[in-house]
Amino acid sequence: MAGSGDKVTLLAEWPSLYVHRVQIALELKGVSYEYLEQEVWVNKSELLLKYNPVHKKVPVLIHKGRPICESTIILQYIDEVWAGIGPSILPSDPYERAVARFWAGYVDEKWFPSSTKIMKAKTEEEKAEAVEQSLTGLNLLEEAYEKSSKGKPFFGGDNVGYLDIVFGSALCWEKTIEKISGIKLIDETKFPLLAAWAQRFSAITIVKELTPETNKLVEFWKELQAIRNANTSGN
Amino acid sequence: MAGSGDKVTLLAEWPSLYVHRVQIALELKGVSYEYLEQEVWVNKSELLLKYNPVHKKVPVLIHKGRPICESTIILQYIDEVWAGIGPSILPSDPYERAVARFWAGYVDEKWFPSSTKIMKAKTEEEKAEAVEQSLTGLNLLEEAYEKSSKGKPFFGGDNVGYLDIVFGSALCWEKTIEKISGIKLIDETKFPLLAAWAQRFSAITIVKELTPETNKLVEFWKELQAIRNANTSGN
Repeated sequence: MAGSGDKVTLLAEWPSLYVHRVQIALELKGVSYEYLEQEVWVNKSELLLKYNPVHKKVPVLIHKGRPICESTIILQYIDEVWAGIGPSILPSDPYERAVARFWAGYVDEKWFPSSTKIMKAKTEEEKAEAVEQSLTGLNLLEEAYEKSSKGKPFFGGDNVGYLDIVFGSALCWEKTIEKISGIKLIDETKFPLLAAWAQRFSAITIVKELTPETNKLVEFWKELQAIRNANTSGN
Repeated sequence: MAGSGDKVTLLAEWPSLYVHRVQIALELKGVSYEYLEQEVWVNKSELLLKYNPVHKKVPVLIHKGRPICESTIILQYIDEVWAGIGPSILPSDPYERAVARFWAGYVDEKWFPSSTKIMKAKTEEEKAEAVEQSLTGLNLLEEAYEKSSKGKPFFGGDNVGYLDIVFGSALCWEKTIEKISGIKLIDETKFPLLAAWAQRFSAITIVKELTPETNKLVEFWKELQAIRNANTSGN
């Protein structure tokens, strides 16, 4: 990365899976970057409000002084800007790209929200419904893995790709949900392919180094709930 | 498009803005396709359940016998598969692509849902809140237009691009919301740039031919509400 004009900065927060996926992509591509920890839930910095005035969320990637927001958009940006450097993130085939985008959208819009509902549920009924939705999603993702990987170790084939990064970055929260709720989601008897994939993904050095400890995430979640409850009761 | 293996089929429903955007992209690229009208709200066809078992929604593009689902994913697929044919849909510059994807996401996830809430609101308070959210969104989109178009006629510059198609396909529903609620959203005194853009976009021959009459959409909306109410009261 020649010249300071090419500087890459990441507005981040350590528990965010959306931040982790951007970090994984940057590390895979070998792009060096400045990491700026934010306190999104407590106190939004001027930097964050300046660079992501619409959603006021991390991650924000600042490259050549210009912000890029929304984690999946950032992943595609990284893949396009550093196209010649490191492995490709998205598949090269248009149909495979569409399939990867489809399941990444499914993880972000359906599976992960229903899984976090397991921790948020206020009644046993709500919890049971969330568990059922999450398991239904995992069933679909198990099938998707079988089709996409074609017997290879990742959704992306021989190498980690877009869907591996999007889904894989959520695994640390999946473990946190397990710890908080006592419910195992990616159970190896129910989802043998996903369970083996999750192990492989989590064992990658870059991923291992970036992944926060489950205990710390559990603690963070409890603090966050306390902040949310205080805010709600104050209204 | 040589050979029947290249056949393109679109599972569609005439009132769907998500279908219109795919049709606009196909027409811009000059790709011929078979249009198969579905009755998504009344009776989901076997074809739809087969090709989009996850979301059971239109549009579904079937190309070479394989389904592609989710309208923005389909737009990108069309742009990538027919890259050498007709105008490009996404900008070629990675930063401009990221910006177009960002605002397209904003339209789909924030602006359009808050705008439809104006029609769905059960109280005046709910309606006022939805109107405010929709207008806040339009303010942001007015600014985004100024920056993206750089004085040219479209978000995409001289030609209709990704964000023009995503946002523009919602204009027929914006008019429908106006007719049902009596509230003008893209008001030319408040949003002069967007109002002029909307007029230019709607005047494009392809768009004009594809856009359903507002009166028909109003009628469809009323029928849909009746179906929904009947389903709710039956539970």
